[in-house]
Amino acid sequence: VTDRRALRWNGWGPVDQPDPLTGRPGFWALVADAVGATTLPETPAQELETVRLPPPLAAPHLRRLEELLGSEAVLTDRRERAARARGRSYPDLVALRAGDATSAPAAVVLPATTEQVLALLSFAAETGSPVVPIGGGTSVVGGVSGPPWPWIAVDTARMSSVLEVDEVNRTATAGAGIDGPALEAALNERGYTLGHFPQSFRHSTLGGWIAASGAGQQSNRYGRAADWMLRATVATPSGAWRTEAFPWSAAGPRLGSLLVGSEGVLGILTEATVRIRRLPEVRDYRGYIFPDFASGAAAVRSAVQNDCRPAMLRLLDPAETRFLGAVERLGRSPSLTSRVFARVVIARGAGATPCLLIGGFEGGKEEAERSRRDTERHIRREGGIPVGARPGRSWYASRFDLPALRDVLLARGVGVDTVETAGPWSDLSHLKASIGSALERAIAEEAPGRHGLVLAHLSHSYPEGAALYFTFVFPQRLGDEIEQWRRIKQAVSETIVSAGGTITHHHGIGEDHRPWLAAEKGDVGIELLRALKATLDPSGVLNPGTLLPDRVEDR
Amino acid sequence: VTDRRALRWNGWGPVDQPDPLTGRPGFWALVADAVGATTLPETPAQELETVRLPPPLAAPHLRRLEELLGSEAVLTDRRERAARARGRSYPDLVALRAGDATSAPAAVVLPATTEQVLALLSFAAETGSPVVPIGGGTSVVGGVSGPPWPWIAVDTARMSSVLEVDEVNRTATAGAGIDGPALEAALNERGYTLGHFPQSFRHSTLGGWIAASGAGQQSNRYGRAADWMLRATVATPSGAWRTEAFPWSAAGPRLGSLLVGSEGVLGILTEATVRIRRLPEVRDYRGYIFPDFASGAAAVRSAVQNDCRPAMLRLLDPAETRFLGAVERLGRSPSLTSRVFARVVIARGAGATPCLLIGGFEGGKEEAERSRRDTERHIRREGGIPVGARPGRSWYASRFDLPALRDVLLARGVGVDTVETAGPWSDLSHLKASIGSALERAIAEEAPGRHGLVLAHLSHSYPEGAALYFTFVFPQRLGDEIEQWRRIKQAVSETIVSAGGTITHHHGIGEDHRPWLAAEKGDVGIELLRALKATLDPSGVLNPGTLLPDRVEDR
Repeated sequence: VTDRRALRWNGWGPVDQPDPLTGRPGFWALVADAVGATTLPETPAQELETVRLPPPLAAPHLRRLEELLGSEAVLTDRRERAARARGRSYPDLVALRAGDATSAPAAVVLPATTEQVLALLSFAAETGSPVVPIGGGTSVVGGVSGPPWPWIAVDTARMSSVLEVDEVNRTATAGAGIDGPALEAALNERGYTLGHFPQSFRHSTLGGWIAASGAGQQSNRYGRAADWMLRATVATPSGAWRTEAFPWSAAGPRLGSLLVGSEGVLGILTEATVRIRRLPEVRDYRGYIFPDFASGAAAVRSAVQNDCRPAMLRLLDPAETRFLGAVERLGRSPSLTSRVFARVVIARGAGATPCLLIGGFEGGKEEAERSRRDTERHIRREGGIPVGARPGRSWYASRFDLPALRDVLLARGVGVDTVETAGPWSDLSHLKASIGSALERAIAEEAPGRHGLVLAHLSHSYPEGAALYFTFVFPQRLGDEIEQWRRIKQAVSETIVSAGGTITHHHGIGEDHRPWLAAEKGDVGIELLRALKATLDPSGVLNPGTLLPDRVEDR
Repeated sequence: VTDRRALRWNGWGPVDQPDPLTGRPGFWALVADAVGATTLPETPAQELETVRLPPPLAAPHLRRLEELLGSEAVLTDRRERAARARGRSYPDLVALRAGDATSAPAAVVLPATTEQVLALLSFAAETGSPVVPIGGGTSVVGGVSGPPWPWIAVDTARMSSVLEVDEVNRTATAGAGIDGPALEAALNERGYTLGHFPQSFRHSTLGGWIAASGAGQQSNRYGRAADWMLRATVATPSGAWRTEAFPWSAAGPRLGSLLVGSEGVLGILTEATVRIRRLPEVRDYRGYIFPDFASGAAAVRSAVQNDCRPAMLRLLDPAETRFLGAVERLGRSPSLTSRVFARVVIARGAGATPCLLIGGFEGGKEEAERSRRDTERHIRREGGIPVGARPGRSWYASRFDLPALRDVLLARGVGVDTVETAGPWSDLSHLKASIGSALERAIAEEAPGRHGLVLAHLSHSYPEGAALYFTFVFPQRLGDEIEQWRRIKQAVSETIVSAGGTITHHHGIGEDHRPWLAAEKGDVGIELLRALKATLDPSGVLNPGTLLPDRVEDR
């Protein structure tokens, strides 16, 4: 289980992680060029010792918590509180690096059982203290946004046992606080996997995946949290809730599914039962080049609508194909793949807009091979060309590494954030173009004479449509970083909604997307959410300020 | 669209359907033997003219409805009201046949648009008139249970257009009142199918399938309503609700999924968008014989857990294998199949407990062939033997016919009903044995010296478990039919719940299963249902008496 003390309090990943730029000498030149700058400033983060924190919880309340949970389960020291002051969104990182942990909790508690969480919630309701469940704390949308002092951070790390691996029914039950590596290790040992590998996999938790409605990179094969979550135990201020059992039941609406995307506002997940699958014999990841994004998207659509069952189809747009290729080649002699790649691109006359598709095929040998062959039929039909295993292997090897780069860039005055959406296939090209130009325009307006770099890929696909994922890199306006970001975020969010996309495919609502929730749910939907919230959390202590729009924002 | 005037007002299917016993001379001897009777009484149904009906809605209210909906959309005649007095459960049929339509609506209305339904709901809330949406009216669990007079039956038949078939996104949008054959005809014409074929397919509707959380016979391939329903429009007393769009979104809990299983208590579905698939080139249905139920179930589990992707795997237990085989052979010379069947059964030494598995494989030629080969690998490993296409074809040809037999049996003093459940694979054998003996015991207690016939099959399967479907035939206690049934139903329902099964896998709750809902949902779940109901239907006019338990039954 994640030891938070080994993780950065103000950034991504372990304190002692290797420098991601080792062996990439031209990286800064590439970045400077991307954002139209000649030099990049040094913008180091504040030290923990100088960070501004609110006071800890009053002594009588702390004593009461220690009585309920044990004294080892109640933490108030600077590092523990600062580390949980916020999630890991762009404004979260900017604030923490600037020494602003004023949103930190008044206490961090680590309950070990559902009963302890229930006791804690009674205390919270009595005293009116907001409580925010924290798994990995990796939300990139303000899911851990720090409600008004004195709030209590409920770290789920001690509820992290694997309680059962049921090989007959292919299910596993574990504490909600278990993180990705610990859960997979326990399952892998028995020959199984959950197959949920979001980019945050190393630090995020089972409970967080469900609460944030997560989708792993291989969701084509393994499904999203909405697909693999079968049953949960939830502590709510109105009591413990064990959601429906049974493989399926027509006994009224499936209420347990409401926990997917509930973001800690309806209850605190303490245990979950999930669908598991046999550990694949084969994990075959490969690259394909398309002459443009539209033909690549047509191949993905066609493969998914025709049951080819890949584990993953990830289509990079020309900018992302070019930039990630350039980053990969830094400090390396041109590989066979890059030479093949270049040759193919030239031969196809697709020099201007080549798009790399990473296809992943998993399962038994025969099964993976079959899904690859089936998928490649559609790839070829749309003009895609196989460029071998190297781009696949290279992507696979670094698939969890990108978030750590944000810290490196922020130390040189370069901002980076992501937005993601989903829409029907028929709207995808319009959606992508609108979002791309909204981002470019918003960034340019912020930095006269400079520009941003906007990369996009198709990340998840369904018979009905697909998700688009944008990464944007921009020169920071030093001293005005958060407001600068807010203006860009506002512009792109409005564009997403008006172009017919969802405000989020798998990052969640948190604090950052609240203004756009009502547009998706409608008035009736928002009233239903409020009714659910009022039933489970009548005093409103659970993660206030996330998910639900304020009353005034309603119309 | 279904013309209700062409359907029986007190039974299943068209008025003019052919006698299902034609060409089956030994049928009654077989039935008499099955229930331990020497003779069977004649128990004809009352004629429509003698049926007891409550008065129609008061004239001022009728005039108001005619103003809102048009005079052609408001019906009060005997036949229209009697036909909608109840659904098609066992007690429903018994009551109607006995001339009891005292639960009939005070008026039948046929709104044509969502706006008209909204206007109707305002009228209902103002006047306190209960309203019950009726699609096909085929509920077998008291879903159309007739709340206190004067209730209004809202027939959705006029909201039955196919509004869009979107070939790019593989979705279709239609009025909720469209019935199975009309929807499939419109989709088939374009080369698509929804693939939802419950036994009620010919008469039930899109809205009904969603509201009752239906699962078609081929749900392995096409999914349940919960899987294929993407978006719906719902008229509620609190306004129109368009549920979430988008292939997927992490913007909070997916509220639209609450409509699956909502049984008309949260709103009236007026439109739905569904996932469609290519019409299969091949529909290959075949038989396999297993020496016993456990080995057959092991094969189904293994095939489903290993992604063999059959369209359907339906495993009959020894009693159902034997009885349906006997019915099929009535008045026919022994077919090649039945001879092969007999030979195989003898050769395997499985004379006592042979179980027929019907496997269905659909899709493109290669796809169907592949899924058959993959599935057969697991069938063989568990001792199953292919017995050719005939049992599959024969099942397929008669797959919607069984409900009509109930009317025939009821006319000779023989009752027949079904119960169904689902549980994890590890509990299946215990669940099946417990339910089977509970039914046999309950029937025997009711009819000293006689006995019942209890047939079972595994009907739907998932990686985590499967659904079991029981049909039971029993001699009626004439004059006490409904109470007799109630005692049997009570006994078997208690057994299902205590053996760890769900009270319903795909029939729904209705009036009949209400006492067992709280056991599944828990106190918190029931409070959530009440909160949803109170938000959407504050005056409680929508289908009162179904789904939600009465307050007193809560604990």
